[in-house]
Amino acid sequence: VKLTRDPTPLSLSGMYGILHSPNFPEPYPRETELRWNISVPDGFQIKLYFSHFDLEPSYLCEYDYVKIEAEGEVLALFCGKEETDTEAVPAQQVITSPRNSLSLLFSSDFSNEERFSGFMAHYSAVDVDECRKQSDENLLCDHFCHNYIGGYYCSCRYGYLLHSDNCTCRVECSSDVFRERSGVLSSLDFPAPYPKSSECSYRIEVEEGFRLRLQFDPHFDVEDHPDVSCPYDYIKIKAVSGEFGPFCGSRSPGVIQTNSSVATVVFHSDNSGENLGWRLTYTATGSQCPVPETPPNALINPIQSEYSFKDHVLFTCEPGYRLLKDREYLDHYQIDCQADGSWSSRPPPCQSKTARPLTSQQCLCFIEYKSRI
Amino acid sequence: VKLTRDPTPLSLSGMYGILHSPNFPEPYPRETELRWNISVPDGFQIKLYFSHFDLEPSYLCEYDYVKIEAEGEVLALFCGKEETDTEAVPAQQVITSPRNSLSLLFSSDFSNEERFSGFMAHYSAVDVDECRKQSDENLLCDHFCHNYIGGYYCSCRYGYLLHSDNCTCRVECSSDVFRERSGVLSSLDFPAPYPKSSECSYRIEVEEGFRLRLQFDPHFDVEDHPDVSCPYDYIKIKAVSGEFGPFCGSRSPGVIQTNSSVATVVFHSDNSGENLGWRLTYTATGSQCPVPETPPNALINPIQSEYSFKDHVLFTCEPGYRLLKDREYLDHYQIDCQADGSWSSRPPPCQSKTARPLTSQQCLCFIEYKSRI
Repeated sequence: VKLTRDPTPLSLSGMYGILHSPNFPEPYPRETELRWNISVPDGFQIKLYFSHFDLEPSYLCEYDYVKIEAEGEVLALFCGKEETDTEAVPAQQVITSPRNSLSLLFSSDFSNEERFSGFMAHYSAVDVDECRKQSDENLLCDHFCHNYIGGYYCSCRYGYLLHSDNCTCRVECSSDVFRERSGVLSSLDFPAPYPKSSECSYRIEVEEGFRLRLQFDPHFDVEDHPDVSCPYDYIKIKAVSGEFGPFCGSRSPGVIQTNSSVATVVFHSDNSGENLGWRLTYTATGSQCPVPETPPNALINPIQSEYSFKDHVLFTCEPGYRLLKDREYLDHYQIDCQADGSWSSRPPPCQSKTARPLTSQQCLCFIEYKSRI
Repeated sequence: VKLTRDPTPLSLSGMYGILHSPNFPEPYPRETELRWNISVPDGFQIKLYFSHFDLEPSYLCEYDYVKIEAEGEVLALFCGKEETDTEAVPAQQVITSPRNSLSLLFSSDFSNEERFSGFMAHYSAVDVDECRKQSDENLLCDHFCHNYIGGYYCSCRYGYLLHSDNCTCRVECSSDVFRERSGVLSSLDFPAPYPKSSECSYRIEVEEGFRLRLQFDPHFDVEDHPDVSCPYDYIKIKAVSGEFGPFCGSRSPGVIQTNSSVATVVFHSDNSGENLGWRLTYTATGSQCPVPETPPNALINPIQSEYSFKDHVLFTCEPGYRLLKDREYLDHYQIDCQADGSWSSRPPPCQSKTARPLTSQQCLCFIEYKSRI
């Protein structure tokens, strides 16, 4: 006949304490059940051991026993005074709870003649070293983990900031504006893994009329997903002419030609993954102007196969000639390739230094002559 | 030029925390001193380490430095960024305070051009395991020591009680009264060391008229002192006839003859020492009565060389005779040795069964005859 009723448990919530059988050190009474529920704060485990143990021995401890349980599992079952093949005694054994609670059940049956002195047990809370317990699969801290009694916290390497998730280390990376006509941008620490939990925004601003062209390195590694399009980390290019991306995975986006002089490269990383990132080289190209016609006896500099926005062409004349512009003689004259692909003005003619100055009538004839050619 | 003023220290009393140089992660200012005093509760030590360190290097750290002190001792002096022959950097080193306080001093000199990023340090309280630290010379607990976070407590083996000093284990040993005419008494666990901090009182009570005689075993070991008489542990015998002792040391007190039927053996032990104790055998001896005279034709039983208190002597007669006592014929007659050393009565005479019964006159003559012998 075994007792089936579960006794009202005694709650122990101190950081340490003592448990003993009823009437200890006098022998315990028969037909008694007593349960202790020990709980300590989160961040601790419970260590329990016995300084005295003397219970009625029985096969598989079916009469009197001490049972230790946690999280629905039986951690130990003890009876008797000496270890046997089928029964265990606590001896010097220290029982550690898997988490922050532990339950001890003492039970004596009807047949006990009160000849056994019972037990005395001691428990204490022990700190869990979360930092030592973390694994590669279960990283608690992105960079540094600091254990303290009852908990832990994370911190970051120099130059990084702890994200509000208190775990990952982000960077401040949105303050840069690139104004040069060409440049290189990359994820931080490239080609070492880029920071987590970061939202980087790199703005490229060149003079109006230029068109930005972005070329990604072939070496490209941004966390992706086999089915969903870039749900974790991604890079996006925003330009007036349109948006490019999001890009992720291990295949480089290659060349992106925008039609804008302003573009924003947005790079988002989430709180996990160890990917190597990306690098791009940008160049600003302008509108093309036609190759300027060289008037008779004129010299042009520089001579290029193509001229584009912001290119300049300087006209001079062969020896014995001079430039005539708006009734004035000039040594040289510059025209500029404009944003719309046209030159700022027409090249002036070269006139022999021995010729007389033109009258307004002659000038008019000359213009007519020019237009007829 | 070094600063000599000691800055107002910052007090840190949390169980963990972070310290960093002024303006961190920006470079630290010149001509700055800053002291942190960390203290945690008794029962804890302080663990301190650095996650970033970059100070101006200088020979023996005479310009900028971080100095860690405790209990008036310098535990560490750091500067620079790389270890050299003459200067140290913290690297992965963990500094542990000898007790529950630690001080950190940061100092920068005037010549610093604010190019060094400074330091970040982390501290936490760690539990002292007092039980592991105790030594044979410095025993914290007589029997069992139980560590917990922030402290420890002692407990005792089964059958012992913790003394109010919370350290030694005493016994309850004053309830026994010895009533047998002989017996054995000893210190608890003899010849294993006797319990500390105990006051034992063993009362021996035999019938009035007996005199108690105590014989100590030659094996005797009670804590003593070379100069003072038994200041720590001692054994004393208290009897009505006088007090014996105190006894201590390694020489047995031998035999103690009291003149009392009641004696108290008092045994006192203090809170230290591992001595083996004592054992004594007591016997109760009574007053001596004279060997009784055997009347003619009488038999006496038992025949002893000595008779003492509580001894009995039985008189019978040879065949053909019978005892005559107070005009009555008896088969046997008993006299008792009394507490004062006299017999309870005189032995009666043996009369031939063939003789006539005595008259009262004859009887009287017989008594006269007896008293004349």
